Amino acid sequence: MERIDDLQIKGYKIIQDNRYFCFGMDAVLLSDFVRGKKSAKILDMGTGTGIIPILLEAKEKGTEFVGLEIQEESVSMAKRSVILNGLEDRIQIVHGDIKEASKLLKQNIFDIVTCNPPYMTNQHGLTNAEKAKSIARHEILCTLDDVIREGAKLVKERGSFYLIHRPFRLAEIIGKLLQYRLEPKRMRLVYPYIDREPNMVLIEAVKGGNSMIKIEPPLIVYEEDGKYTKEIFDIYQMDFAEKKEEG
Amino acid sequence: MERIDDLQIKGYKIIQDNRYFCFGMDAVLLSDFVRGKKSAKILDMGTGTGIIPILLEAKEKGTEFVGLEIQEESVSMAKRSVILNGLEDRIQIVHGDIKEASKLLKQNIFDIVTCNPPYMTNQHGLTNAEKAKSIARHEILCTLDDVIREGAKLVKERGSFYLIHRPFRLAEIIGKLLQYRLEPKRMRLVYPYIDREPNMVLIEAVKGGNSMIKIEPPLIVYEEDGKYTKEIFDIYQMDFAEKKEEG
Repeated sequence: MERIDDLQIKGYKIIQDNRYFCFGMDAVLLSDFVRGKKSAKILDMGTGTGIIPILLEAKEKGTEFVGLEIQEESVSMAKRSVILNGLEDRIQIVHGDIKEASKLLKQNIFDIVTCNPPYMTNQHGLTNAEKAKSIARHEILCTLDDVIREGAKLVKERGSFYLIHRPFRLAEIIGKLLQYRLEPKRMRLVYPYIDREPNMVLIEAVKGGNSMIKIEPPLIVYEEDGKYTKEIFDIYQMDFAEKKEEG
Repeated sequence: MERIDDLQIKGYKIIQDNRYFCFGMDAVLLSDFVRGKKSAKILDMGTGTGIIPILLEAKEKGTEFVGLEIQEESVSMAKRSVILNGLEDRIQIVHGDIKEASKLLKQNIFDIVTCNPPYMTNQHGLTNAEKAKSIARHEILCTLDDVIREGAKLVKERGSFYLIHRPFRLAEIIGKLLQYRLEPKRMRLVYPYIDREPNMVLIEAVKGGNSMIKIEPPLIVYEEDGKYTKEIFDIYQMDFAEKKEEG
């Protein structure tokens, strides 16, 4: 069933549906990691319900946003969220396939391209009932290569391509970025606890940049007692008080 | 002047000289990161005074070791340290150039190849007086490409290539590893403090491995109060009680 969640920032709201993919911490961390500026033109590939453009707009990290999404139900919710927040003049939701993004949209014009893509290559045991969520989580309709190849065409020279992904694919991600002239310039690992393996990686790559990457301090999510760390609390305070769980 | 330091493990000692490069935490962390086994045949490229083969032998991570080193003074000290520790039948020190390692040594025979290479590309402001140390720290006599290309030829199929390096070169390192069919399989970032950027990265790459990397928990060096963390203390306890500073 559809629901409307309050994003606790600028009074913005988002329409989500438990039957489909609801946004998680990934989208919040990615929008926090992006270094935008008020004048930036930003594309979000695989935007789902439009959470990333809406958060980026709220944080004044851009002016003109395009959200590209292949699933019709998500496109519908995203468009309605844009209207609900009065952002029709800033955020455009486009129904289309990431694999053909560079045909649907103008190339080399975006200051920033963001993507929170499907993480998993594994497609075992998926049922039809889970298909909408699976498309968001597994590489069913687009692969890592599609995402990076198309992102590289759409972002302008010296513009930034941002990705959040699973650390186990880091070598593959860096290999692909280099292949498409997106030079990894900034990276941050997200560790659930200080003594655990990271479960997310944030990367910024600059088209045509020189070879030098800045690895940021670790982002630790939980204190030993299971409470959020101050940094996560700070990031979420800016966004909304209560974390919305993935559906 | 030459000095003999006690490694506090198996009674082993090492001959060093402040005028040349003395080993630092890097060598200790790399030897700790290596997953060897008693039967392994191990090559250390740019072995300096032989610290890595000696520590790996002490930790029973291999049986047969080759240490390759270009600087004559270091070769001399390394050879004498090997004799001092009675390891002549296990550790062979070879005087030679990393750039030609695959001509000097048999290819595809090492289970493990390790390297703690020069980190810096920058060669500004180097004086002659500092030359011996500079060769160990700056890419004067060999580049990252030389190290990875030659390591890839010497390690056997499914064998492991280990590197410790500076994080700012991570993208370049991963790109080069992939170029030479060394698949990054394990990585650990060393953060001086929990809220700082990492200053070292440890990587294990497997020749011909599949694409999946395991990123380990962060290795934090200091507590807030400037004391070593328990993990560093544990790593050093095994090696020697008192950290020897780089000369």
